[in-house]
Amino acid sequence: MKDISYKNIKIKDGFWKIKQDMVSDITLKSVYDRFNETHRFDALNCTWKEGEPHMPHVFWDSDIAKWIESVGYTLSFYDKPELERIVDESVERIIKNRDENGYFNSHFLVTGERFTERNEHELYCAGHLMEAAVAYYESTGKKTLLDAMCKYADYIEKVFVKEQSAAFVTPGHPEIELALVKLYEITGEKRYLELSKFFIDNHGANGKDKELYRGCHLLYNQDEKPVRECDTADGHCVRALYLFCAMADIAYLYNDNELFEAAERCFDNIVGKRMYITGATGSTCHGESFTIDYDLPNRDAYAETCASIALGFFAKRMPKLNMDSKYADTVERVMYNGILSGISMDGKGFFYENPLEIDTDFNDVNRCTEGGKRFPITQRKEVFDCSCCPPNVTRFIASIGGYMYSYNDDTLFIHQYIASEALSEDIKITQQTQYPSEGEVKITLENNSKKYIALRIPAWCKEFSVNKEYTVKKGYAYIMASENDEISISFHMPVRFISANKRVHDNAGRVAVMRGPVVYCLESIDNGKDLQALRVNIKGETKLSDSEFLVPDIVAQGCKESENEALYFDANDDYIEAQLHFIPYYAYANRGETDMLVWVLKK
Amino acid sequence: MKDISYKNIKIKDGFWKIKQDMVSDITLKSVYDRFNETHRFDALNCTWKEGEPHMPHVFWDSDIAKWIESVGYTLSFYDKPELERIVDESVERIIKNRDENGYFNSHFLVTGERFTERNEHELYCAGHLMEAAVAYYESTGKKTLLDAMCKYADYIEKVFVKEQSAAFVTPGHPEIELALVKLYEITGEKRYLELSKFFIDNHGANGKDKELYRGCHLLYNQDEKPVRECDTADGHCVRALYLFCAMADIAYLYNDNELFEAAERCFDNIVGKRMYITGATGSTCHGESFTIDYDLPNRDAYAETCASIALGFFAKRMPKLNMDSKYADTVERVMYNGILSGISMDGKGFFYENPLEIDTDFNDVNRCTEGGKRFPITQRKEVFDCSCCPPNVTRFIASIGGYMYSYNDDTLFIHQYIASEALSEDIKITQQTQYPSEGEVKITLENNSKKYIALRIPAWCKEFSVNKEYTVKKGYAYIMASENDEISISFHMPVRFISANKRVHDNAGRVAVMRGPVVYCLESIDNGKDLQALRVNIKGETKLSDSEFLVPDIVAQGCKESENEALYFDANDDYIEAQLHFIPYYAYANRGETDMLVWVLKK
Repeated sequence: MKDISYKNIKIKDGFWKIKQDMVSDITLKSVYDRFNETHRFDALNCTWKEGEPHMPHVFWDSDIAKWIESVGYTLSFYDKPELERIVDESVERIIKNRDENGYFNSHFLVTGERFTERNEHELYCAGHLMEAAVAYYESTGKKTLLDAMCKYADYIEKVFVKEQSAAFVTPGHPEIELALVKLYEITGEKRYLELSKFFIDNHGANGKDKELYRGCHLLYNQDEKPVRECDTADGHCVRALYLFCAMADIAYLYNDNELFEAAERCFDNIVGKRMYITGATGSTCHGESFTIDYDLPNRDAYAETCASIALGFFAKRMPKLNMDSKYADTVERVMYNGILSGISMDGKGFFYENPLEIDTDFNDVNRCTEGGKRFPITQRKEVFDCSCCPPNVTRFIASIGGYMYSYNDDTLFIHQYIASEALSEDIKITQQTQYPSEGEVKITLENNSKKYIALRIPAWCKEFSVNKEYTVKKGYAYIMASENDEISISFHMPVRFISANKRVHDNAGRVAVMRGPVVYCLESIDNGKDLQALRVNIKGETKLSDSEFLVPDIVAQGCKESENEALYFDANDDYIEAQLHFIPYYAYANRGETDMLVWVLKK
Repeated sequence: MKDISYKNIKIKDGFWKIKQDMVSDITLKSVYDRFNETHRFDALNCTWKEGEPHMPHVFWDSDIAKWIESVGYTLSFYDKPELERIVDESVERIIKNRDENGYFNSHFLVTGERFTERNEHELYCAGHLMEAAVAYYESTGKKTLLDAMCKYADYIEKVFVKEQSAAFVTPGHPEIELALVKLYEITGEKRYLELSKFFIDNHGANGKDKELYRGCHLLYNQDEKPVRECDTADGHCVRALYLFCAMADIAYLYNDNELFEAAERCFDNIVGKRMYITGATGSTCHGESFTIDYDLPNRDAYAETCASIALGFFAKRMPKLNMDSKYADTVERVMYNGILSGISMDGKGFFYENPLEIDTDFNDVNRCTEGGKRFPITQRKEVFDCSCCPPNVTRFIASIGGYMYSYNDDTLFIHQYIASEALSEDIKITQQTQYPSEGEVKITLENNSKKYIALRIPAWCKEFSVNKEYTVKKGYAYIMASENDEISISFHMPVRFISANKRVHDNAGRVAVMRGPVVYCLESIDNGKDLQALRVNIKGETKLSDSEFLVPDIVAQGCKESENEALYFDANDDYIEAQLHFIPYYAYANRGETDMLVWVLKK
């Protein structure tokens, strides 16, 4: 099973073209400016001195790396010489300042330490630089950074495997594992794959790294037990999900069923019990972590943008091992909700946390206080001290095509519906669609050599029609296709009201509104204060209305409480009818500070 | 306006007699045993050495003091020579070990410090010893401790007022202020009243104590602004409420209207915007504090037992300044709910925190982590490291009679309905009632010299009948009474469903069940798991059923969700009818660990 690479898929006019244009024209420059102002690019010079105001944080290199990776993807479709020049100059600095072993880290090159503390993000930064190198090479053919990263990987192998001189064997923040797989795939050098497997096998498998990190349980680092024994998703969400990505990669490439089953258990645990309806994860800011099954508070959701992205990465990898639509459904869930909420409609602002409910009156109470001040969660910011999310969003959007298709000898799998043109192994696949605004998709095949085309039937879709005979298996409709063919599929896309499992306290008696893959929300700017007390009639008429946010808004029938100033009073059934105006969740907080609510009381 | 003292009121067979018997027969001995085992009584010897395992905490004296105070109240009605002997021995130790100035503190006598840090509870402990001295003198006529405390108070006056040699002028934890008023009232020595006023006037009025305490805002200590400028209840709840008590005392005794108005604003802010339906306060464990208006989370409620007691103290004092039933309504609210939940039905276990919702599956998540480990909130404990609540509950129950009556020249006010016999100034008042199980009260007056009897009409009561003509004013029904008279009043006591203000997020779409003053709850032991998803039909029939918890249980009609294992699924209106079995909230967690819920979804 292979994926069609993002670089072979040109996104055409429609939802994702608008997003990719925004990223390439606005966001990448804006993020660069903020990173530059905050001296992140300067740090590559490795000339800082201890105690200086702009001392690079240990994970700054990863910010730069994800930005470079994003530019790499972007350059496949956009001519952006200014961005390319910045990358080239940055690479030059990396090459110039790395040590004789190929080691590069703008923080530790100056302090002189090497792999002494697993939570200092050295391997994490290295991994991101490797991903950047692969992406930049793929689009530009420029090999300097890639060669440098191969040398760096060789050094890591030497320190961790051959000499075993590092102070730890389990990376504190997984990332290197999946990056080494990419390095292997682009170079064909099996030792990188083996090095990845070495790290995977070591997670939780030995006593060397059993110290606690800042009082956190070993679960925080996914180091409590061997990865093959995991059956729940625990600890820091992004760490866990990056690890699961590599577990899926290694399971596939080594045909390691035990590892696949562990990854599958974790996936099922997440989507079945620990995931917000937006695809977000992270029920608490304490350790930015998963907590326990069904613990999904809305106002205090951590729901880090990076965690939604990471779940997308994980879900993208799993179909190779088990072609089931639950994975691509999850990719779709994060791409239209938990990831996209992380970036403003103008492409400049970002959320780190993505709660499912905001009441601005309560901004300062009941918030997690661990680690001091929180990121603001009512308005997006252009840069954070810990600015992992912005360049993660850009790399996701810039490479969105890569989530669309997989194939094996006889079948082409269509996972995502995006207006686009793909060319792979001479097959040309064109999708014409207004998805997710509308459910109609016209797919044109030219030079098709596959026997079957398998179209994902989204789990949200209860009714669809297609101009071919089909058989559904694990969520995909298999169609016999000819060399040049045209498939028209129409997904019925009504407004839906969704309940949550009754174990989820915050959502008891409440429903979320969805249409297609898009989760909606109420904002007080449209609906007045006290959204939590509004009720929506799930049997009432709904209508679509014009929106400034790419997909239609939704107007639903509902009611609100009669006014009562008392704190406690005799209950009644007096309601005032009200129309509720829903906008896409991903568009919340784009019109100033306002309350927001996803889960609405059911009338 | 005067209150009839608790010591003139004999509680007779009924609800509170059972509670007082329990306290005198079981609880006081059990608390003594636990305090003894934990070396609190040993500490009075002042022979401990720095670093010893049983080094007394700075506030241990207050635990002993509240226990002595409780014994004092109890000895008015019960012959308990064993308890009296323990008090006498304890007093002996205090007398023996105090310093030449009369200063006593089992911690600081050993360390040698005197009033160097306002948050070290020295004045707080002193205040509690004064309250104990007054209570013990009142019931036994034994004056040793009272004399000792007068000497101690004189020394405090010297240090704080005359010499101004203390390191601070604002007590970190209010208590001394209200205690000095009691000392004044029992001795007639005006200097104690003036010393109390000195502390009141200093709260927030000077810059000397503006340091932050453990990073807490000055609000924590009620030291942000002069007390006369306060208009909201802020900071640590017990601290705030003890301060408000003294504000009410001083306002009354000095006829200080500005101070009364401040106390009134704070009272109204609490009961109108910051109080749980149980009368509990403390919306967060961070600083055990009030937060902001309408922030009343149920599962994460702090709702310290001591804070409910302190609100009772405050509400008891206010009618002297403004005869309005809202105060005695609040006393009633805490006495049947937020306070009583603090003690187990067997009289041995205590809750420090009294949440309004428990899901045992979520015990370990989303809990406040500040200050390390929390007290268990699913099962009562016999003693805590910080064991302020147990002897606070005992002193409240042992002196419950004191909340019943006030009088002025022409009117006797009946605030609470409790089967009892009162004798004051030759008036004998007998109440025969099964309140709060039933709403009928027969009041017999003998030798009555008052023109009017004013009966509180509880705010919860929408319908009542009385065998006399009456006029209602500020919640009291005024009746002309003869010298020997009999008043029969009947409060209609149906099951009621109560809504909360829509600003309270956790209670949106939910109702609480009450009957009379008693708040009810669901437990999973009766109703199965997932209480949060049950719905109660507020138009449905309810019936009373036998209870093991002093007042009837309630069975209401409702429904539950149909089963669905999915995390998210299409909403429906399929419910399964269900009978919901409610028990009194104060009785929760008396049958083992079980989930509990006060606010139930409204069908």
